[in-house]
Amino acid sequence: MDAAAATLARQPGSVDRLVRLTAADMAGVDRLITDRMQSDVPVIPALAEHLIAAGGKRLRPLLTVAAARLAGSENDHCLKLAAAVEFIHTATLLHDDVVDGSQLRRGKVAAHLIWGAAQSVLVGDFLFARAFELMVETDSMRALQILAQASRVIAEGEVMQLMRSHDLNLSQALYLEIIQAKTAELFAAAAEAGAVSAGVDAERSKALRDYGMSLGLAFQLADDALDYGGATETLGKNAGDDFREGKATLPLLLAIARSGPREAEFWERAIGRREQTEADFRRARELIIGTGALDATLDLAAEYADKAKAALALFPANELRESLESLADFAVSRRA
Amino acid sequence: MDAAAATLARQPGSVDRLVRLTAADMAGVDRLITDRMQSDVPVIPALAEHLIAAGGKRLRPLLTVAAARLAGSENDHCLKLAAAVEFIHTATLLHDDVVDGSQLRRGKVAAHLIWGAAQSVLVGDFLFARAFELMVETDSMRALQILAQASRVIAEGEVMQLMRSHDLNLSQALYLEIIQAKTAELFAAAAEAGAVSAGVDAERSKALRDYGMSLGLAFQLADDALDYGGATETLGKNAGDDFREGKATLPLLLAIARSGPREAEFWERAIGRREQTEADFRRARELIIGTGALDATLDLAAEYADKAKAALALFPANELRESLESLADFAVSRRA
Repeated sequence: MDAAAATLARQPGSVDRLVRLTAADMAGVDRLITDRMQSDVPVIPALAEHLIAAGGKRLRPLLTVAAARLAGSENDHCLKLAAAVEFIHTATLLHDDVVDGSQLRRGKVAAHLIWGAAQSVLVGDFLFARAFELMVETDSMRALQILAQASRVIAEGEVMQLMRSHDLNLSQALYLEIIQAKTAELFAAAAEAGAVSAGVDAERSKALRDYGMSLGLAFQLADDALDYGGATETLGKNAGDDFREGKATLPLLLAIARSGPREAEFWERAIGRREQTEADFRRARELIIGTGALDATLDLAAEYADKAKAALALFPANELRESLESLADFAVSRRA
Repeated sequence: MDAAAATLARQPGSVDRLVRLTAADMAGVDRLITDRMQSDVPVIPALAEHLIAAGGKRLRPLLTVAAARLAGSENDHCLKLAAAVEFIHTATLLHDDVVDGSQLRRGKVAAHLIWGAAQSVLVGDFLFARAFELMVETDSMRALQILAQASRVIAEGEVMQLMRSHDLNLSQALYLEIIQAKTAELFAAAAEAGAVSAGVDAERSKALRDYGMSLGLAFQLADDALDYGGATETLGKNAGDDFREGKATLPLLLAIARSGPREAEFWERAIGRREQTEADFRRARELIIGTGALDATLDLAAEYADKAKAALALFPANELRESLESLADFAVSRRA
């Protein structure tokens, strides 16, 4: 099957059914998030709310809740773990935006541009500590272990990315290692922690961890493809950001390897030295599409989505499992 | 007893005996620290070691170990908790130095000036997560709760300080609230976690928490006094730093309140607007000594040192308890 056919054969997928099935639980998670971001120091909830109220898909806490319910949990520990997961995620976003000097987050002005980098760093620390306080309340040492490890691996991934992000010779293996650490690990830990809170056996909690890991990789690969327009003709609103920042993502790395010495000077100027003209993004996009780098990235994302779905095979084929399968397809097919 | 007599009556105190009594345990803590700051990402141990190898007094982990042994612990869980406490402390120092733009830390160039603010923030996150991984290994949910809460309170204290640090009208009560959160809370949690790891009753773990809290307040008050020369004629090597940064510490706040409207313009210029001349620090120091603000700060520190010692009354009067009493005296009498 050629790349175009593969794209056509992909299931569109959707997150809607999962959102509907977990609506009551996620309302509880939202209440916990609002409740536990409070502090006697008023700037803390103000800054945290700026980011948290801006929404985002709440995908990671959703995974925790869905994994717990699929694994048969009948208690509400997964709600606290889900809120903790969202706090860890929010803390990393606050620190990331300081680290990268990002201007925008979730369509709003980045918090550090309003409250300053110092407050963003400290409120990130506050949310990270709050996450652990929430986990302690569930009395699950295993869940604490999983999320403490994930937090450490994310920090390692961020450091790796910071050092290699403009490296045009980054290998595909190292690129995958970085996105596994900085993105997929928290998806994996979110699902595994949910499974563990259900008291499920090691095989099933491992399966849900694997689901989360493959899903996270599929999401990040698709994200990186979307920055060059993904499989669509119309460009998303943030398309070109990675290119302008000179970020070495897979579509770019593959295009550089495939376009050969003829384009070496172009890549070196536009990405290596980041001397870009208006026309450069269009040229890069043509090369990324023309060399098949974009399709190869989406094919790899689709492979991970399939792997994610396969990991769910040992659970009963109920509506919740189907909605998680559909989420994996959605990861690759989404347009934003 | 007037202020001068109170100063003379103070016990000199020492940390040496405590260091000697805990030497074997602290060697174990140092091995754990070196071992657990490792990572496959080489910049992480390099940056962490820059700060950790620079020494510092290791007071907080020392408290954890001493509290555990005084409470009768015969296992080595306190070593892991002590290493976790030092990691939390190191993480806050890394983030603080970024937040304050500090040039020096422990007599060395601050890490963010060598590796950049981004790496300092991320390595702080790594150490914070590692601290929780270490705590999980001790299997003590109560210790995790104590140190998660302390981490959150420290972040709140840092945010408070950032907002009020140049406020010349800061009340003594609010100043004490800030140093309790940003400094004393970790001393309290360090001692309490050690006690808890010994499986001691609530009364005794509370007593060791109280000891740590009062000790931490005494240390910070004495630190703030030392910045204006403390009780000695000779100035320490960092004397004047707080003044030059315009930091509203207790000696300054008391001197401002006591020197009256005649000096209001001087304080407003030198601290409020931070327009300082070479002679200003000497003038400020004269006012701080002349108004009795320095002695009042040291008297308050001595009161907390006495409170710390009193908290130990329900433990056997052995050499370890005596060395902790001596540490409380040392907090106030030290010259650096």
